[in-house]
Parts: sequence; C-alpha cells; structure tokens
Amino acid sequence: SWKGAPEIKTADGWSFKPRGRVQVDLAGIDTPVGVTGVRGGTATEFRRVYLGVDGKIPGGFAYRVEADIANGEVELTDVYMSYGTGPLTVTAGQVKPFNGLDDMTSDLFTSFMERAAFVQAFGFERRVGLSAQYKGKALLLQGGVFGDNAADLTDSNHSLSIDGRAVFMPKLGDTQLHLAASGHWRDPNDPAATVRYRARPFVHTTDVRLVDTGLLDVASERGLGLEGAVIAGPFHAAGEAYWQTLKRSGAADPTFFGGYAEVGMVLTPGDARGYKDGAFDRLKPSKPITAGGIGAIEVNARYDHLDLNDGAIIGGRQQAALIGLVWAPIDYIRITANYGKLWIDDARVATATGDRDYSADTFGLRTQIDF
Amino acid sequence: SWKGAPEIKTADGWSFKPRGRVQVDLAGIDTPVGVTGVRGGTATEFRRVYLGVDGKIPGGFAYRVEADIANGEVELTDVYMSYGTGPLTVTAGQVKPFNGLDDMTSDLFTSFMERAAFVQAFGFERRVGLSAQYKGKALLLQGGVFGDNAADLTDSNHSLSIDGRAVFMPKLGDTQLHLAASGHWRDPNDPAATVRYRARPFVHTTDVRLVDTGLLDVASERGLGLEGAVIAGPFHAAGEAYWQTLKRSGAADPTFFGGYAEVGMVLTPGDARGYKDGAFDRLKPSKPITAGGIGAIEVNARYDHLDLNDGAIIGGRQQAALIGLVWAPIDYIRITANYGKLWIDDARVATATGDRDYSADTFGLRTQIDF
Amino acid sequence: SWKGAPEIKTADGWSFKPRGRVQVDLAGIDTPVGVTGVRGGTATEFRRVYLGVDGKIPGGFAYRVEADIANGEVELTDVYMSYGTGPLTVTAGQVKPFNGLDDMTSDLFTSFMERAAFVQAFGFERRVGLSAQYKGKALLLQGGVFGDNAADLTDSNHSLSIDGRAVFMPKLGDTQLHLAASGHWRDPNDPAATVRYRARPFVHTTDVRLVDTGLLDVASERGLGLEGAVIAGPFHAAGEAYWQTLKRSGAADPTFFGGYAEVGMVLTPGDARGYKDGAFDRLKPSKPITAGGIGAIEVNARYDHLDLNDGAIIGGRQQAALIGLVWAPIDYIRITANYGKLWIDDARVATATGDRDYSADTFGLRTQIDF
Repeated sequence: SWKGAPEIKTADGWSFKPRGRVQVDLAGIDTPVGVTGVRGGTATEFRRVYLGVDGKIPGGFAYRVEADIANGEVELTDVYMSYGTGPLTVTAGQVKPFNGLDDMTSDLFTSFMERAAFVQAFGFERRVGLSAQYKGKALLLQGGVFGDNAADLTDSNHSLSIDGRAVFMPKLGDTQLHLAASGHWRDPNDPAATVRYRARPFVHTTDVRLVDTGLLDVASERGLGLEGAVIAGPFHAAGEAYWQTLKRSGAADPTFFGGYAEVGMVLTPGDARGYKDGAFDRLKPSKPITAGGIGAIEVNARYDHLDLNDGAIIGGRQQAALIGLVWAPIDYIRITANYGKLWIDDARVATATGDRDYSADTFGLRTQIDF
Repeated sequence: SWKGAPEIKTADGWSFKPRGRVQVDLAGIDTPVGVTGVRGGTATEFRRVYLGVDGKIPGGFAYRVEADIANGEVELTDVYMSYGTGPLTVTAGQVKPFNGLDDMTSDLFTSFMERAAFVQAFGFERRVGLSAQYKGKALLLQGGVFGDNAADLTDSNHSLSIDGRAVFMPKLGDTQLHLAASGHWRDPNDPAATVRYRARPFVHTTDVRLVDTGLLDVASERGLGLEGAVIAGPFHAAGEAYWQTLKRSGAADPTFFGGYAEVGMVLTPGDARGYKDGAFDRLKPSKPITAGGIGAIEVNARYDHLDLNDGAIIGGRQQAALIGLVWAPIDYIRITANYGKLWIDDARVATATGDRDYSADTFGLRTQIDF
Repeated sequence: SWKGAPEIKTADGWSFKPRGRVQVDLAGIDTPVGVTGVRGGTATEFRRVYLGVDGKIPGGFAYRVEADIANGEVELTDVYMSYGTGPLTVTAGQVKPFNGLDDMTSDLFTSFMERAAFVQAFGFERRVGLSAQYKGKALLLQGGVFGDNAADLTDSNHSLSIDGRAVFMPKLGDTQLHLAASGHWRDPNDPAATVRYRARPFVHTTDVRLVDTGLLDVASERGLGLEGAVIAGPFHAAGEAYWQTLKRSGAADPTFFGGYAEVGMVLTPGDARGYKDGAFDRLKPSKPITAGGIGAIEVNARYDHLDLNDGAIIGGRQQAALIGLVWAPIDYIRITANYGKLWIDDARVATATGDRDYSADTFGLRTQIDF
C-alpha cells in the first residue's frame, strides 16, 4: 500500500516503510526594543527534517527508527521495538512518555506550528525506557519507566522517571470524546542536578525565551495533567491544564502551571479533524486538489497560559492568543499560517527601558510534507 | 523502474526512490617547502557520502531529502518540495541558487574531481529559499529569493539573496548549444558581516588555501556570470566567466574574477557527454562492461583562472592547467583520474624562503558509485 | 526476498536492501568505592543504531553505505564498493581490516554483548583503504592497505597500515573447523604520534577504563593474532591470542597480550551457531515463536585475558570470567543477558584506599533487532 511512501508488505505479516517529513518555516517576532534584538525579526529555518523507517514482523513485533537531521546533528526521535498481539503492547526504546494531548499529537497534526507553552517549558521530550500500553474500545492506559533522552545518556546520568496516562475516549454517535489524566515523577538521582523551565514565544526561529525560571536545583519533579477534547462534525474543542511541582532540598517547593483552551472548525464540507489512540490525527481532505477539489481548510483559535511565578521564583507569566489557518491540499502536504499576540508579565528579558511587562506579536508560515 | 536503485511507482502518479552516492578519493598536492607541509602530500578521504530519498506525488508535487554524512555530521544537501504541472515549477526549500554551469552540474558528472576555483572561492552553496523555474523547449529561466545554507540559519542570520539565471539551449541537429547568464545579489543585513574568498588547490584532502582574501567586511555582494558550451558528437567545449563585486562601507568596492575554458572528448564510439536542463548530465556507456564492452572513456582538459587581487586587496592569483580521465564501466560507477599544474602569484601562504610566486602539482583518483 | 527488510531484486542482477539495527542496553558495573563512582552503576543507552543500504549491480559490483547514529553524530561503519565475479573480490572504502575472529564477527552475532578486551584495547576499528579477498572452498585470504577511520582522516593524517588474514575453514562432516592467523603493521607517519591501549570493563555504559597504558609515543605498531574455533552440532568452542608490539624511538619496545577461550551450547534442539566466511553468523531458530516454538537459546562461557604490563609500562592486567545467555525468538530479534566477574591487577584507577588490585562485577541486558 502507499502512505505517502510505499509500504512493502508480505502475506505472512512482514511490512516495511520509509518515513520522512520536512517542515520549512518562515517565522518572526516583533518585541519592544531591547528584547529579542537581532535574534528576533523574520527568519527562515528547517523546523524538522526527519528520515527513518518502520516495520512489522510476524508474531506481533514492530519497530521504528527515525531521526531529525534538521540541525546538522542526528537527533533520535522514535527509536523502539514493540511486542503485542492483543490490546496490550510492550515497548522498549525511545518514545514520548505520555505527557498529555498536545505533546502526544504528532507535530504533523498539531493545531498550531508550535505546541502549548507548558509542553516546552516543563521539558517534555522523548526518553529511553520500557513502557506498556493497553488499548480497549474506549479506554487507553499508557505507562512506563524512563531514563533520559538518548542525547543525554552519559555514563553519570542515572535519572529515572515514571510516567502514566489514562484516556477515556468514547465515540458517542459521530462525536468523539476525549477525557484524560497524566502523571509524571522524576528523580535525577544526582545531588547537583538542576532544571530550567522556559519556553520560546511560539516562534522557533528565535532562541530567546521571554519567560524562564533560570536554573533551579531539583531533588525530584512531579507533574499532573488533565485533558479534555471533543470532535463533533467539523468542530472541535480541546483544553489541557498541567501542574509541575519541584521538590527541592532546603528550599520551598514551587508549583508552576500551564494550560490552554482551543476551538477549531474545518471549513471544507465533509472534512473533519482526525483522532486516533488518544491524540489528534491527520486532516484528510475528502476532495484533494488532485480530485479537482481545494483540499481541506481548518481555522483554529487558542488561548495559552504559562505561569512560571511561584513564591520567590519569578520566571514570568506568558499569555497568548493564537489564530491559525491550516490548508491540506492533499493528505500528505500541509500549509500552516499562524498569528499570535503575547502578553508577558515579569519577563526574563527586559525591554531597553527596563520594562518587564510588555506584549509581542508573532507570525509563522510553514510548508510541510511527510511520508 | 531501476535507476541504480529501485524507483517504486504507482499507476496514479506516486513515486519513491532511495538516493545515495559514495566518492572515495586518493589525492595529493606537491608544493614548495613550507607551503602545505604535513597538511599536503597524499591522503585519502570520503569526499561525499550522500543518502536520501525523493518522490513524486499525484497533482504535480515532488520532494527530495538528501544529506552528506561523509564528515561525521549531517550536511543537508537538496531538501525541497516543488509544485508544477506544466513548464513552470515552484520550489520551497534548500537548492543550489543557479550560479552557473559548473555549479549546477551535479558533482557526479563534473569534468574534474573539483569544480572551477571561482565556484568555491565565491561561496556558491545551497541555500534555503523560494524559487521558480520556467522550462521551455530551448529556454530555461530560473530565479529565487534565498536566506542562507541550512547550517548557517541561526536566529541572528537575516541575510537575503536574489539569484537568477537564463539559459538558451537549442539543439541544432545533433549539436547541443548552451548560452547562459546568471546574476547574484546578496545583503547580509548585518553591519558586522564579513566574507572570505578563497579556494582549495583542486585537492580536497588539504585544507590549506593558497589564494585567500582573508576576512573582508561586506555591505552587499553582487555576482555576474556568463556561460557557453557546445556538445557535438563525442566532443564538447565549455567556458564560464564570473565577476564578483563586494560593496563595502567606507572602503573601495573590489571586483574579483574567475573563469575557465575546457575541451573534452569521449573516446568510446557511440558515447557522448550528457546534457539536461541547463547542466551537464550522466555519461552513459553504450557498451558497458556488463554487455562485454569497456564502458565509456572521456578525456578532458581545462584552463582555470582565479584572480583575488583588486586594488589594495591582495588575495592572490591562481592559474591551473588540468587534465582528466573519466571511465564509466557502467552508468552508475565512475573512476576519475586528474592531474593539475598550478601557478600562484601573490599566494596567501608563502614558501619557507618567503616566496609568494610558485607552482604546485596536484593529482587525484576518485572511485564513485551512485544510485 | 525478505531478510528482515525487503530485498528488491531484478532478473538481470540488480538488488537493493535497506539495513538497520537497534541495540538497547541496560548495563552496570559494581566496583570498589572510589573506582567508577557515579560513572558506574546501572545505566541505559542505545548501544548501536545503524541505518543504511546495500545493493548489487550486474557485472559483479556491490556496495554498502551504513552509519551508526546512536550518539548524535554519524559514525560511518561499512561504506564500500566492491568488484568480483569469481573467488576474488576487490573492495575500496571503509571496512574492518581483518583483525581476528571476534572482531570480524558482526556485533549482531557475538557471544557476549561486548567483544574480547584486546579487540578494544588494541584499537581495532574500521579503516578506509583498498583490500582484496580470495575465497576458496576451505581457504579464505584477506588483505589490504588502509589509512585511518573516516572520522580521523584529517589532512595531516598520513598513517598507513597493512593488514592480512588467512583462514582455513574445512567442514568435516557436520563439524565446522576454523584455524586462522592475522597480521597487522601500522606506521602513523607522524613523529608526534601516540597510541593509548585501554579497554572498558565489558560494560559500555561507563567510560571508565580500569586498565589503560596512558599515551605512548609510537614509531610503528605490529600485531599478530592466532584463532581457532570449532562448531559441532549444538556445541562450539573458540579461542584467540593476540600480541601487539609497539616500536618506539629511544625507548624499549613493549609487547602487550590479549586473548580468550570460550565454550557454548545451543539448548534448543536442531539449532546451531551460524558460521560464514571466516566469522560466526546468525543464530537462526528452527522453531521461532511465530511457528509455535520458543526460538533458539544459547549459553556461553568465556575466560578473557588482557595484559597491558610490559617492562616499565604498567597499564594493568584484566582477567574476566563471563557467562551469557542468548535468546533469539525469531531470526532478527535477540535478547542477550551477560554476567561477568573481573579481576584487575595494577589497575589504572585505584580504589579510595589506594588499592590497584581488586575485583568487579558486571551485568548487561540487551534487546536487539536488525534488518
């Protein structure tokens, strides 16, 4: 069969498929004088360039090896083997540790070019470990024990995390419901360990973070997330809330908060947002331009909130109103345009006049292909 | 179909093909005492190791993702998506910005192991941008707006270039004519920007450059190229001239020059140099060794000139006489042997006795496979 | 045909196959206080993540391009082209330079997770060069001239090695015999060159080496290896001895020694250790779990010895007793568990109390898939 690229299969259950994606971004940010400076403005970049393969092996085995080569290095993304013949699947290798809807949704299918601020701020990333998933008709349970991202697995890194997520996802007639909760616990097993919570301003072409806690010592880290979403015909709504608590030795334990609420609508008749296995999925045009149609068009709006202030720690608070347009002329190509208005309080980076409360404008344009 | 590797196709217009190339070089340079020292002499290297894929999507879309992994890193080469159903094609991503015949000819098919000195000296490289191409029967128009090479796209890089090329390529009976002009304009958009024009001595195994302007501050850069070529039966001739002008603030604006003239002949009866879309193409043996023949054999001779002296700037002048032998036992394998005599005036690197006018000998042997 | 991944072939002799492997390790070492410290203990890592392709071209040509991307970089592994229509094959590119049975056996098929200590200590690695192989019915001759590993081929590296190996491998009834000798000579062609002989303690998750000569100046290096092995039904035995001699200018020429002896048995009826072309090969279960069996199970035991003491040089002596279990549920998946007891004399790294003679315990668990 063909899924952007050929999937080669045999009658006895083998399969093999090349995988890839390219995201070319033009994006920019306009801030008060003295904030981003020459590191802001409009710039272009390859946001992601993935190449890889996956396959199935008779008997219930599967694997994936994929990496992001956009930045001159090889950043391993999904690299795993799995085994499962029924509703239960066991996976060894590097995967996403089940930290919520926006993170678990592939970057190919997110509503906006960049994920919710808390996803980045709280350090969600793929980690090497052992995990399991139970998938019932309307229930999905995911959990695992993880070390660290493959790039950080030096011989003195003995950190350990336990992550889990439960998703209730009944289909009521044509309406897809999604209710979920996730939990995260992490022990760096290193008395000198630090964390730094910060997020880019919804624009990846700048490396400046307007909100940033700076380095904080950490004895352990605890996260709790709640998720809700609904897809009803062309409409969808989604929201998440996430609390990240830091245990520190000899200092107060701050809790930071992030979340978002979003609504969206697919404008082209007969098209709808995809959903699969506890995450949003591909927007497939019923009338692609290759069939004389105009593809699928979706508009989305989101309010995003990130609060990195707690007690004596002033990392800043960022609020954003985002609107976005997605155009999928065919299944595997997607053009995304975003505009965002940001309001920052207690910003890490002050303006030229020393002001730490200000607003900023961002925009982005992405051309994307995947197979 | 099979093009070195399988190209998988469907009836409705999908295609997918793995791509790759390996070039193993043994090359060396003999210079006067004190010039290249231990960094010269004979050495071996992987000149290029490319892996990638490309494909077509019904409706006029195409893409390529390819990278050079020869040097421990991932250097993105062609990474683009394109759209075009007729003579006009629009491309987003990283491509070569149309800077002349020798640069646009794939390194798989160049007459010599290394391209003309000006191609390297004037910094021709792939850049990320938006470009368009019109391809008529005998007319090819190419143009685009570009940022920088993917590896240089840091958040403070806002450079911009506009590049264009017009090719007149009529076929007169069996004779292929090629007349072209290209233009280049680039603004680094950075008051602190510098450029450095320099070129290796036709040997990639040394990092020593005998001619080199050193760092020059740059307000903007302007290039103009002229190209001519003819392929008549087994014979071909080609030549290019390129002028690169530097606009500087508060200093004179130097113009540097490079060019070459070349003749070649395919010795094996019935074989000829390939040409396609404004560039030289594959040398395909009509009697490959798999069919009992000896493959295709071509001899080439080139005079190459690079003048990096202008006004107060003394970057040096390099002249080279190159002869080369190409043997293609089959379509996708190629052995290339080169000898070059170089004459340098005002060299950047002086001999042990302080002499800056001297000559050098180079040789190279390449074994190449591609798919 | 399908070999973990599809091998695409044509009737006239073309073939193309994707290649890959993933090894996820959980491994650890327990040493006296003060030795490995935080760099020991239990840790996880991707030991190897290979991606690549190989293929055949009509007329006797073949090629392979493969790289290890486990560590954020691209480490080229096998990258070569070869030509041969009969028993003789000529190869240009990067391959293993024929340094003994344990090194020539693919890491997919070794008896234990890490190879013999001398393989690592004496710097065996793939190198770029030109080599040839003669393969008769019971005789295998391999030899080549090599530069250095692709990652070390800087322009001032002019090192040269000559390596050769002769294998006598008769099959006496169902019994496979293996008798071999290999020789190595290397000249760094650099008066300032140094070497450092050292080995990890059979655990790759730590970078601490308990035995280590430190940097030694080297005029030239000479190696001699002897190999013997036998596979008889489910049993096998193997052993190697290797002497590495350093020629130094103005100092004594030390000779270091390493070797091992091993026995193993495949427990599952009808299964046996594979052997091919002078190296061990894949363990293929006759009753894989996909056919209702339990796969193939093998137990192995090895005594490993490495002596880096000679004359005034005290690099340490390491002895190890290793036992291992291999389970191959199907041909292309393999779980390996290892336990090792190490005895170190004159260790490079002393304990907290200054003791340089001590013992250590190691263990490892590997999950592996390849195609």
